[in-house]
Amino acid sequence: MHFRTRPSRSTLPDMKTFTYRTRLAIEDLAVVDRPLPRIAPHEVLVRIDAVSLEYRDLAIARGAYGALPLPLVPASSGAGEVVATGSEVSRFAVSDRVSPVYVPAWRDGPVDEQVARGRLGGPLDGVLAEYVAVHEDALVRTPAGWSAADAATLPVAAVSAWQALVTDGGTRPGDDVAITGTGAAALFAVAIARTVGARPIVVGRDAGRLERARALGAVVVDVNDSVPWDARLRALTGGRGVDLFLDAVGGDTLDRTVASTRVGGTVSLFGFAAGMRTSLDLFATIRRAVTLRATSGGSRRSFEDLVRAIDRGAPIRAIVDRTVPFEDARAAFVHLADGRPFGKVIITREAA
Amino acid sequence: MHFRTRPSRSTLPDMKTFTYRTRLAIEDLAVVDRPLPRIAPHEVLVRIDAVSLEYRDLAIARGAYGALPLPLVPASSGAGEVVATGSEVSRFAVSDRVSPVYVPAWRDGPVDEQVARGRLGGPLDGVLAEYVAVHEDALVRTPAGWSAADAATLPVAAVSAWQALVTDGGTRPGDDVAITGTGAAALFAVAIARTVGARPIVVGRDAGRLERARALGAVVVDVNDSVPWDARLRALTGGRGVDLFLDAVGGDTLDRTVASTRVGGTVSLFGFAAGMRTSLDLFATIRRAVTLRATSGGSRRSFEDLVRAIDRGAPIRAIVDRTVPFEDARAAFVHLADGRPFGKVIITREAA
Amino acid sequence: MHFRTRPSRSTLPDMKTFTYRTRLAIEDLAVVDRPLPRIAPHEVLVRIDAVSLEYRDLAIARGAYGALPLPLVPASSGAGEVVATGSEVSRFAVSDRVSPVYVPAWRDGPVDEQVARGRLGGPLDGVLAEYVAVHEDALVRTPAGWSAADAATLPVAAVSAWQALVTDGGTRPGDDVAITGTGAAALFAVAIARTVGARPIVVGRDAGRLERARALGAVVVDVNDSVPWDARLRALTGGRGVDLFLDAVGGDTLDRTVASTRVGGTVSLFGFAAGMRTSLDLFATIRRAVTLRATSGGSRRSFEDLVRAIDRGAPIRAIVDRTVPFEDARAAFVHLADGRPFGKVIITREAA
Amino acid sequence: MHFRTRPSRSTLPDMKTFTYRTRLAIEDLAVVDRPLPRIAPHEVLVRIDAVSLEYRDLAIARGAYGALPLPLVPASSGAGEVVATGSEVSRFAVSDRVSPVYVPAWRDGPVDEQVARGRLGGPLDGVLAEYVAVHEDALVRTPAGWSAADAATLPVAAVSAWQALVTDGGTRPGDDVAITGTGAAALFAVAIARTVGARPIVVGRDAGRLERARALGAVVVDVNDSVPWDARLRALTGGRGVDLFLDAVGGDTLDRTVASTRVGGTVSLFGFAAGMRTSLDLFATIRRAVTLRATSGGSRRSFEDLVRAIDRGAPIRAIVDRTVPFEDARAAFVHLADGRPFGKVIITREAA
Repeated sequence: MHFRTRPSRSTLPDMKTFTYRTRLAIEDLAVVDRPLPRIAPHEVLVRIDAVSLEYRDLAIARGAYGALPLPLVPASSGAGEVVATGSEVSRFAVSDRVSPVYVPAWRDGPVDEQVARGRLGGPLDGVLAEYVAVHEDALVRTPAGWSAADAATLPVAAVSAWQALVTDGGTRPGDDVAITGTGAAALFAVAIARTVGARPIVVGRDAGRLERARALGAVVVDVNDSVPWDARLRALTGGRGVDLFLDAVGGDTLDRTVASTRVGGTVSLFGFAAGMRTSLDLFATIRRAVTLRATSGGSRRSFEDLVRAIDRGAPIRAIVDRTVPFEDARAAFVHLADGRPFGKVIITREAA
Repeated sequence: MHFRTRPSRSTLPDMKTFTYRTRLAIEDLAVVDRPLPRIAPHEVLVRIDAVSLEYRDLAIARGAYGALPLPLVPASSGAGEVVATGSEVSRFAVSDRVSPVYVPAWRDGPVDEQVARGRLGGPLDGVLAEYVAVHEDALVRTPAGWSAADAATLPVAAVSAWQALVTDGGTRPGDDVAITGTGAAALFAVAIARTVGARPIVVGRDAGRLERARALGAVVVDVNDSVPWDARLRALTGGRGVDLFLDAVGGDTLDRTVASTRVGGTVSLFGFAAGMRTSLDLFATIRRAVTLRATSGGSRRSFEDLVRAIDRGAPIRAIVDRTVPFEDARAAFVHLADGRPFGKVIITREAA
Repeated sequence: MHFRTRPSRSTLPDMKTFTYRTRLAIEDLAVVDRPLPRIAPHEVLVRIDAVSLEYRDLAIARGAYGALPLPLVPASSGAGEVVATGSEVSRFAVSDRVSPVYVPAWRDGPVDEQVARGRLGGPLDGVLAEYVAVHEDALVRTPAGWSAADAATLPVAAVSAWQALVTDGGTRPGDDVAITGTGAAALFAVAIARTVGARPIVVGRDAGRLERARALGAVVVDVNDSVPWDARLRALTGGRGVDLFLDAVGGDTLDRTVASTRVGGTVSLFGFAAGMRTSLDLFATIRRAVTLRATSGGSRRSFEDLVRAIDRGAPIRAIVDRTVPFEDARAAFVHLADGRPFGKVIITREAA
Repeated sequence: MHFRTRPSRSTLPDMKTFTYRTRLAIEDLAVVDRPLPRIAPHEVLVRIDAVSLEYRDLAIARGAYGALPLPLVPASSGAGEVVATGSEVSRFAVSDRVSPVYVPAWRDGPVDEQVARGRLGGPLDGVLAEYVAVHEDALVRTPAGWSAADAATLPVAAVSAWQALVTDGGTRPGDDVAITGTGAAALFAVAIARTVGARPIVVGRDAGRLERARALGAVVVDVNDSVPWDARLRALTGGRGVDLFLDAVGGDTLDRTVASTRVGGTVSLFGFAAGMRTSLDLFATIRRAVTLRATSGGSRRSFEDLVRAIDRGAPIRAIVDRTVPFEDARAAFVHLADGRPFGKVIITREAA
């Protein structure tokens, strides 16, 4: 369906969305018919062709993010095609391939509270729908030649990694960047580190996954080795420690993270896979003059810069673990929860 | 004693220094005669006229900083006068009033490990001596018209506050800056915040000391109030939270500190009066996109900027609690430990 | 007229606007009746109570900015009151005192082309009208207690000075800031420099106006003195040169501006009162490692920071030279062109 | 000759240096015997194995830099080996391969006047000598495995390009970087742009040299094309203009440079091959919000970052046009002046 002009109100067809109706729980998630959204003068109607499921979406589905307004359309990371544009839209045209920005009001620079509050998939309606209406300022073109499934992996995982490494981190060629785990954002961080000429070092615990990270160009450190991983990281960096540590784990490992980071370096607090609370050795942190910088998502500017880098040939690729059809979206949540995917779990409209 | 030229080796008189001889303990601290230091071509011989005792000096005296090379001259913050200059010195002349830089190799920009390691008072010999030889690049002129006792308060407490608020923090007019406690660095932070047009808010627990902070221009929040202090800080800032939080306390209050800081704001990890280990709510930190930046001392550039601001009329004043003569330096340690001074404890050569 | 709700379409009254109808010329400027603008869901209807005339408005009126789309409502800097809000507006409510942002799409960070193109008063319709409809994201609250006439002075002159000195310039306490002339932006720059603890030095040629700048707290340098003004500036700064030079003059003086700026310092290219073309000594610029940074307007973030600083007590005041009633707006253009105003020329709805 | 310890004074052998004796002119340049320098406690004695001749050296030889203290040893860019270390040297050991830092006092951050004044080859003695004594803080290790001839190309040309693109420019992946000419610094800029994932676009006038630049990975624009080169650059960047323009030409082309740079972008004033004076369109510069940032040399931190990037595998290579033996150093000046070298002219001690 490609609208060349905005459909008149009376002819608005229905569309399908997944929706949490009465509570945040995978079992409550159901397909609901809604009228196709009317677009305001500066809005764009986007047909969503693919959605990438994020751990945040899973946490919301489990109620771990607290209360959110209901009903709610889930999912924060998607891609599709412009099918209609509002009367004053100037940035996009019908048939452009686009992705909605995960934090729609974040243009550039640091966030403030107003900006940070609004996020797709909660509290704002997300992209697990056939169509979404998006302000033209909250959309980004996807990389030339990328499929919707591949492009859908970018808005949260890749943009967050770009924000942490490039926009906020200012990573330079020759820098050492440690990255915990082999999740999708971590794998993007490996590629982005290589793009800027830095050396990515992945710290993980699964030999098979580490081997795949190595194949992507990372140095790898196995936490099961007899030598403690922080000592390994210091040894790999000539005793100096890494310039930037992308810590997606949290929990009780933050002391080792700080001990692995060079004096004056930065730890990017990027996630909390191992626990939402951590213990911090203030004395060591101050003595090493380490900065802990929380990162959550990224700006439209970061997203646009990322796409431009890909278009210019940066070695950044989507890694897709599995693709499921729209109707089976709940299976994607289950696979993300239990399947230990390497790369992204994608929900597509046209999946076979 | 003013040397116009470098004394020849054979005539070098002795001078007195306080020295930890065999262990780090106040009881071990004794006056020792040492030969006057010979100065290299780029060094300056400084007669130390006043020393300001820092909590770091006290912590070292209690062994809390771990092992340090012995014998060791204590104290990190002092001021005096140039009495001789090496043959190639160009930045200073005899009779200039100067202070040694606490982290001598830190010129500008961020620290690295090599720079951060060297600090006066441990592991490097400090300033509790009649004379010290200092590389000309590790000296700063003191503010015009300031006594040595007043100038001695600057190198650690005021420079650290300047580094945290101005150099690293980029505090702007209209910003809200929360400051824990009423220690000397906190009081300098109040004055520096006012200098840049920001609003200082002191969080403390002693009504009398808070009253004195208020008289210095701070808004004050008493942690004994029935309303929790983080709620008070949010209320004072229209629900937004402070832009910068100078946390000198550590311990178990960091969660409240984060909760009092605006989305995208910064917590300066500035000390650990309440404990060297803290617990951190990663979820809240990431959701609020808060940066935790460790600060310890400041660069020569920060020190020079501070002095220039004072010379240009900034409302920054030394606050001296008590002055003791050189011979009684151990009494200064005791007073700092037990006397709850408001402002600095100063050791002077000429004290009455 | 205060609308509590959005007026229905059929009842929309007319309003008056000044408009260039067929060409950019003061003689072509006439009062035109237009229907009151309908507001979109995220728009706010603002009653304009005061307009501050800018030199840019005068240059446009003389055709010096080249072709612009006609008809065009002039003026870029105004203030007024919210009289109606769109259905989804959350940032403002009826009766809030507000100013439209001069570059409406500039939120924070650096500009890009799309953002920089849109400016009130040309090519976008300006504020010399009874009412304007503004997206809620392109409005800022005015300082508490300020009249509309005073608030109208801020959006261009004060925000540009703030952007140059604070947001881009990072001016610090103790810095020396040279400012050319005694125009309205220059006078705001004096106040802003003092707010951040810097020393403003005004370079001008009119003894009477320099005296008034001195009364506002500036050091002044008269270009008619026998000592060349660049030598004066170096002398005033101990031979070092100023940290930041706000050059609103252009023309053939840029070499002296560079020669007055410290090694590693910045010249803010802020205007071109003496000519749109200048000659630059590349050798001196490179040897002094001077940065020339063009500034034109400021971001919403800069405007909000400015207002917050004023609300917190910063010594920033509006300086109004003359106030003329709305009907006589053309007289304001004439006075700005010929009257050598000290401070702003204001057009008000309620002027006596 | 490897000294394991510092030679005693009485046994100091002589060494050869090239020296301007009575005036700055190639004809005055002669080999002079000087005693081997004595090294101070923090100094290192370096045997210079290769010198790279810079255009600055040529300009000095022609008197174009004005008066400098005589006698003077020329040349700013060299590499060699540590043969002796002062008693307190900790950063280097005998047989380390090193390069002196061109601006010896520049550690990190921006320059100030004191730092900027001191430069090798004038006013400070340069490296066209058999041995030089260097403070350990003004030395950098050369890339692992690089010959002295290759390493000698780095200290001025590559470090300046790194400073402009990376340290000051913050060039990001996907950025477009225009570079004028195909001089040695320009060729390093091509490689550094590629290292950070940016796209280098070389603007030149010699088809053969442009072809070689293309082979190094640059997009090339020939100024002899019928389409003006600024229009070409805008077309190559989708009408946007380049993010950073490294302008080594100066003269009368700066307007086109500004017109080729994106709104909010930066022009790096990098040289003045076409003239030390330029004309600047202030109106266009301000309308495009372009920053002109002068760059001259780079900090030790930039040099160290560059070497680390090379050691980590960055595609940065030395390009040597010709190598001449030490005795024939004057021939190197002549070749640089008249030979239109592609890459560097190197003077070596061991050249065949």
